[in-house]
Order: sequence, then structure tokens, then C-alpha cells
Amino acid sequence: MGYLVSDQRQRRLIALTRLVTARPGAQMNLTDLGRRLSVAKSTLSEDLMVVKEALETHGLGTIDSQVGMSGGVTFTPVLDIERTRQDVKDFIRELTNPDRMTPDGFLYVTDLLFSPRRIDVMGDLLATAFRSLRVDAVATVETRGIPLALAAARGLGVDMVLLRRDNRLSEGSSLSINYLSGSSRRVQSMSLARRAPVRGGRILFVDDFMQAGGTARAAQDLLGDFGAHVVGVGVLVATRQPAHKLVEEYRAILEWHRVEEGIGVVEPSAWVQALIGWEV
Amino acid sequence: MGYLVSDQRQRRLIALTRLVTARPGAQMNLTDLGRRLSVAKSTLSEDLMVVKEALETHGLGTIDSQVGMSGGVTFTPVLDIERTRQDVKDFIRELTNPDRMTPDGFLYVTDLLFSPRRIDVMGDLLATAFRSLRVDAVATVETRGIPLALAAARGLGVDMVLLRRDNRLSEGSSLSINYLSGSSRRVQSMSLARRAPVRGGRILFVDDFMQAGGTARAAQDLLGDFGAHVVGVGVLVATRQPAHKLVEEYRAILEWHRVEEGIGVVEPSAWVQALIGWEV
Repeated sequence: MGYLVSDQRQRRLIALTRLVTARPGAQMNLTDLGRRLSVAKSTLSEDLMVVKEALETHGLGTIDSQVGMSGGVTFTPVLDIERTRQDVKDFIRELTNPDRMTPDGFLYVTDLLFSPRRIDVMGDLLATAFRSLRVDAVATVETRGIPLALAAARGLGVDMVLLRRDNRLSEGSSLSINYLSGSSRRVQSMSLARRAPVRGGRILFVDDFMQAGGTARAAQDLLGDFGAHVVGVGVLVATRQPAHKLVEEYRAILEWHRVEEGIGVVEPSAWVQALIGWEV
Repeated sequence: MGYLVSDQRQRRLIALTRLVTARPGAQMNLTDLGRRLSVAKSTLSEDLMVVKEALETHGLGTIDSQVGMSGGVTFTPVLDIERTRQDVKDFIRELTNPDRMTPDGFLYVTDLLFSPRRIDVMGDLLATAFRSLRVDAVATVETRGIPLALAAARGLGVDMVLLRRDNRLSEGSSLSINYLSGSSRRVQSMSLARRAPVRGGRILFVDDFMQAGGTARAAQDLLGDFGAHVVGVGVLVATRQPAHKLVEEYRAILEWHRVEEGIGVVEPSAWVQALIGWEV
């Protein structure tokens, strides 16, 4: 009999672990959880303590409780160092595969940027780096930075704001900005619908690639016109040259040292190397 | 002493649950798991049986084992019916908020489409609907269907293929197709880089919106030129009119019954209603 009861509790703890950790950053209502597991609130609270302690002991994350009317619990994962190190290594190997070079000297990387299993972990890295900034939203300009920006937003428990390349009739009136892109050496533009819910918000700008920083700077200016503040800039790959970028502060996951012939060298930035224990 | 040992096992089962369920659809290597939890393979196998049984008992998903050299375990979640029903309800309420109507008669929905907490569940719905097709990739055409397509791809454990609106020098040579869009009544185009790794694949095409189905049809044709087969089409919202679409089969999560004045009615499709136990 004792065996049966403990068995049932063991099952419940496992189910509770899945339910609580399934949506990192999202609040789970205690009443809903109790009903799902058919337990009273007091039992649920005890179970939550056990799950929290186990997750913390194994370095997997933590559970925070919010009391009051909108009471609930929120799971915040800890970056899986070992797995992230392996994923970063694999990503660099894929990125620098000579077959990716186009005849015009570009690297074809769209498939990597749109692979959830490859890019989600990069978003988790940005979420870890910028968590303390307590941003209200993550913004990017279409198109290739979108999966990374979504993954960062998911990790931070916030929504994403999409800056468009051109005005869309379907979004109502919008504000636009023209700027000179260092990468393409062309005048580019980006726009944001007046309805976009960003006013007064603290924004993390995310993009897949940064050379001179013109795009990040333009996004900062455009969002500023909405009364929003870009408080952080995170990119997947930044070129080492030019060393001076048009935005004051940014964090790149990878640094690309370009050379005349061939792909050159890509390696994790100093902060990523420190975070994941990179061995050169 | 007995208490201590059982305590340690309990913690380990909780940690194992998190580790195994963190990346649905992705294979976890048994050797890595054993090292992470400091247990022998035999103990790990016993623990996995317990976790699997608990997750199944609580209707949360299942764990499958792959044997051999590349042996490991994969977690496949079961759709959380209750939570999904609430999320679909919330989504419809947000979508049909009269404030979303632009002066030109469009609905501003970009913020909803780019909200991970709102759109990921819709991707899970598509993944559930199309799991049995065993697709190799999910494709969408930029831009607004991207978050939904990524979520579906994540749920199915596959990558996403991005069809571009125009040719990009940075992607090398590409194939393009022109088509008449029913929504905008304009000639549109989409293109795909020759390097895109889709050859011979089974593809699920995903988009945010379908009216006549011209975009889905064009995607089918373009992917066909790569020797890939669109075996399923899934969209977030389809208009009830025209009833005849340019693709033979598709699944919409929501159906939009448009009216002359105002927004009209949006409701879940029959298959979604059956899946989540919708009460009209």
C-alpha cells in the first residue's frame, strides 16, 4: 500500500515537472495545476518545492512563485552549458563549410537560420545575456533575423516586434526610416506600423548579422520615434571589421574574421567563451 | 538512509523529466544523459521507464527509444487540450477586437503572429494534425507565416525552408515563380535558392492566411521544380469564401466568415473543434 501511494506521488512529480517546465517564462496558474493533477493546493505547494529543489540541484533552472490574485509559478531555465558548447561548435562547423560560399563571395546560411534545433539555442544564449535588462519586447527587421529574435523573445517571455522592409497597406499607417547599409552599400528602408504596441517599451534589438551596425542604428532611431528605447543589441554574427560600429554597445554570439580568399575564421565572442567554457 | 536514497532518486527522476522533455522531437543520447545524471545505463533505462509511464498516465506525451549506434530517446508531447482550448479562445477574442480594423478594411494582426506565447500553440496544433505525414521540412513564404511555420517545424522535429519574395544575391542562384495572389489581386513572385536542401523531400507548406490558395499553389509548383513534394498545407486563418481553393487539401486552424461591414465571425475549423472539445 505504501508502495502504491509513493508510486502515485512519483508519477505526479514527473507530470508536474513537465507541466511547469513546458513553457519557460510563462506563468502557470496554481488552481489549474491542482485541477490537472487532482491535488489540493497544499499538496501541490509541497510538490512544487520538491521539483524546484531537484531542478536547482541539477542546475537545470528554478521555479519562482507569484502570490496574490494572479498567483502562479514561473519556470526560468538555466542555460545547458555542455549542450550549448556542443551546439555552438556544430554551428560554427556548419557555417564555415566551404560549400556554403556562393560565386559572389556570400555565405549561404538561410537554412541554418531557419532550423529550430540550430537557432533556438542561440536565442537562449541571447536571452541569458540580456535577461537582467528586463526588456518588454524583442525587435528585428525582416527577414533572416526572425527565428533568432523569436527564440530570444521566447526565452525572455516577451513578444516580438517586426520592423518591415516596406510599408504594408494591411498594417495601416506607419513610420519609415531610410539609412545606408554598410553590408550592401545601398540605401535601405524599414518601417513600423503605428499600431505596433511598443510605446515607451524597453526593447532588445536582434539581428542575424552586423557589419557596420547601420541597421541596428536605424532600428534604434525608428523605435525612438515611437517613444521606445533600444536598451540592448544582440546579433548572431558580427564582423571584426570595422571595429567601430554605429551602435555603442552590442553583443555578438560569433565573431567573423574575414579574409581576402576563402571564408576566414569564425569563433565565439569573449562573453560566450566565458559562459560556455570554450577551449581554444 | 533509505529516505536519503529515495530522495536522490526522486530528484534524479525530476531532472531526467526536464532533460528529456526540453526539446520535443530531438533525440537525446543515452550516454550523455547517463553522464549528466551520474548513473549507469541500466539505472538510466529503469528511470526512463518510470518517466515514460508517468508522462503517459498523465496524458502529457510519450518517450520512444532508438537502439543501436546512434541510440537515444525522443520525447513526443501530446497536445494539452485544456490549455489549447483556452489559448484558441483568447486568440479569437484578440483577433476580432474591432480596434484591429484599419481604415482600409484590413485586420492588423502582425503583433499576434509574432508573439511566441500566442502562436507557438497554433504551431503545435498543426504539428499534431500533420504528424502522421512524416514530413522532412516545413516551408513558408516570407514574412508573416514564419513564426507559425517555425513552431510547426519545432513540433515536428524538422527544419524550415524559407521561400523569398525576391531573389537575394547573398543566396546564390535561385528559381522563381510568378503567380496571381487572390488576396492582393496583384502578380506576386516567390523564389528559392538552388542551394536550399529540399530535393526529394516531403514538405508541409504553412502560411498565416489563405483566401483563394494562390500562394500555396505557387509554393507547391516552385517546390515541385526542386523535386520536393508538398504533402500537406496548413494555415492559421482561411476565409470561408471562395469555398473552392486552388489547392486540393488544406487544414485551417480558424475559419473567417467575412461580412460587408465589420469583422465578421472567426471560429475554429471542424477538425480543431473536435480535437480540443470546442463548445459552440
